[in-house]
Amino acid sequence: MWEKQILLLPGPTPVPERVLRAMGRPAVNHRGPDFKAVLQEVTRGLKDVFQTGNDVLVLTSSGTGAMEAAVVNFLSPGDKALVLSVGQFGDRFKKICKTYGIEVIAPEFAWGTAVAPHKVEEVLTADTSHEIKAVLVQHNETSTGVLNDIASISRARGDHPALMIVDAISGLAAAPLKTDAWGLDVVVAGSQKAFMLPPGLAMISVGPRAWERAVNNKSPKYYFDLQAARDNLTQSQTPYTPAVSLFMGLLESLKMIQEEGQNECLSRHVFYRDVVRAGVKALGLELLAPDTIASPAVTAVRVPPGFKAGDISRPLRDKYQVIVAGGQGKLKEEIFRIGHLGYVQLTDLLAALSALELVMQDLNLPVRPGAGVAAAQQVILAGRSG
Amino acid sequence: MWEKQILLLPGPTPVPERVLRAMGRPAVNHRGPDFKAVLQEVTRGLKDVFQTGNDVLVLTSSGTGAMEAAVVNFLSPGDKALVLSVGQFGDRFKKICKTYGIEVIAPEFAWGTAVAPHKVEEVLTADTSHEIKAVLVQHNETSTGVLNDIASISRARGDHPALMIVDAISGLAAAPLKTDAWGLDVVVAGSQKAFMLPPGLAMISVGPRAWERAVNNKSPKYYFDLQAARDNLTQSQTPYTPAVSLFMGLLESLKMIQEEGQNECLSRHVFYRDVVRAGVKALGLELLAPDTIASPAVTAVRVPPGFKAGDISRPLRDKYQVIVAGGQGKLKEEIFRIGHLGYVQLTDLLAALSALELVMQDLNLPVRPGAGVAAAQQVILAGRSG
Repeated sequence: MWEKQILLLPGPTPVPERVLRAMGRPAVNHRGPDFKAVLQEVTRGLKDVFQTGNDVLVLTSSGTGAMEAAVVNFLSPGDKALVLSVGQFGDRFKKICKTYGIEVIAPEFAWGTAVAPHKVEEVLTADTSHEIKAVLVQHNETSTGVLNDIASISRARGDHPALMIVDAISGLAAAPLKTDAWGLDVVVAGSQKAFMLPPGLAMISVGPRAWERAVNNKSPKYYFDLQAARDNLTQSQTPYTPAVSLFMGLLESLKMIQEEGQNECLSRHVFYRDVVRAGVKALGLELLAPDTIASPAVTAVRVPPGFKAGDISRPLRDKYQVIVAGGQGKLKEEIFRIGHLGYVQLTDLLAALSALELVMQDLNLPVRPGAGVAAAQQVILAGRSG
Repeated sequence: MWEKQILLLPGPTPVPERVLRAMGRPAVNHRGPDFKAVLQEVTRGLKDVFQTGNDVLVLTSSGTGAMEAAVVNFLSPGDKALVLSVGQFGDRFKKICKTYGIEVIAPEFAWGTAVAPHKVEEVLTADTSHEIKAVLVQHNETSTGVLNDIASISRARGDHPALMIVDAISGLAAAPLKTDAWGLDVVVAGSQKAFMLPPGLAMISVGPRAWERAVNNKSPKYYFDLQAARDNLTQSQTPYTPAVSLFMGLLESLKMIQEEGQNECLSRHVFYRDVVRAGVKALGLELLAPDTIASPAVTAVRVPPGFKAGDISRPLRDKYQVIVAGGQGKLKEEIFRIGHLGYVQLTDLLAALSALELVMQDLNLPVRPGAGVAAAQQVILAGRSG
């Protein structure tokens, strides 16, 4: 226990030393001026990352709490919602909606594929009486490593007044997302992803069209009441005691993102994705998602026939301290997932690919030692010269 | 900003260096064996502190989230609940119940007084058809510094089958609470109080009678669904990503409580309360709660006539870096509150009393310099010899 690990999960990601130090500051009064200043600066920084002039609220919960908030503040029992699920987290939106008596319309998309925007257009065009109150979709589907084309999906609504509610928990700051330019009414994010923080905070942006719907909303809510959060934020406060130490860390990680530059941060994620995909392909392993929709945050790799996810991930962990994730839901044993978001470095990826080669050799899988690492190096050298 | 402060709030409390260091450990996989071991050990430690064999679940939220969980898992819309409020947090239970369509029966108790157990007996005895499904009450009412007699209130139920739901957020490990011996079906706690952690985790114990009610419960819930939490805990997991770094801190702070000894920890809180109360009384200030029901976690002091809470708390903070809380709700300006729970030391209290004397002199309030500190010293010396 407590060995030095290479953490390559689709979140939580490693936490930078300077963020850990910021979190280790002495406690402050969450109702005093120090914390107010922190909350104001955090909110400003988040608006930059969300690319929005909308309100951005920070909740003390995991990302799922903010997904619930996105449902219970803007949809009422009996409302219809178009839920575009391409994996585990899309299915979670369905479950939350059903829990609160919201009628779910959910066209089928295979896991490993992306949402087809024309399907959205089809459904919404047919909904001439505007019974569908919102479109719910993942930006990056963590369970399959698929990036949805949120701009096109949002545009596919045409004149239909459905709110656009986007779960960008694992995608924000790893893949482009323009809240205002793309007309996204509600966007959800989480601390333990590209923000490089431990889990425990969730962020949610809310635009004017969504706030209008919140006024007469009939879903019960207390802890996740976003109007209470907004009212408190005008006093630079939160309605309930916030996770102060994580806010301190967030302030620091936002500085790091600003120092790196948002475009550079996004490019890095794409670059790392390409490094991982090239390496994995060169080992003869199959990738779940095609290149065109491949996530810059996480890469899902098919487990070779005759094996289960744990046959790969367990020796990676136990022999080489490389931590990757298995699959989720119906792909639990079929894939393993390499996270490359947040505070990850090239050397982490090279070491992980090398460890993967070793594990494959142990399992007597056909692999040319060094092939994965060599392919990754090619991408790195091309990237440097490019 | 970031001056060395003496934090004397009714939570968050100062965080011990070793807890900060534990929180600063590198991230681990929340689905891997390291975290499973942490969750198991934390759960064992919490059961000791709760004094229970019941399930104890840890939620990633502030304490209010667990208060909501205590309502939505065990009470259904249309149910009646006896809410015993003696302050701001009792009123919060009322609001949460009303949000979920639960009918609230709430006898009046003045702020600064404790719940009268005979009132509970009266109401429940009259409820011959057992329409009241639960009694909700604060162990320690943070807003007024009053400790309720939970054992007697629980006993006052007699044969009535109402569940006993206790908010012990600011009281657990500061004042005695025996979950099983007192027959408490649900008990809620929070990380930022006597557990000496930053905010962000809430704990909730659930006994068999409560679990029975959960089965056919009709209140909608997703993030706060405790049956999902219990099912996941059998696999040493949480249903949604937990605030890993706070769990690491909790593991350490539970060790500290164990090292100190639970009885010693409780005695310390009573001792510190007596030190503060003696000091404040000697300054001629009036205490809100009488000695018999005075909280070992926080002491509410009446602001002298003609002044507001901020007239005391602001100079304490700005001139002397002593952080106390103002009042809440209808006592917002009438009282200020000195927290003495969690990671607080005698020297903190002596310095704070001395700073209070200085502020009173600045305000031209009648005070004999040194009188408060001298009275506190007497209690300390008596305590040492006792």
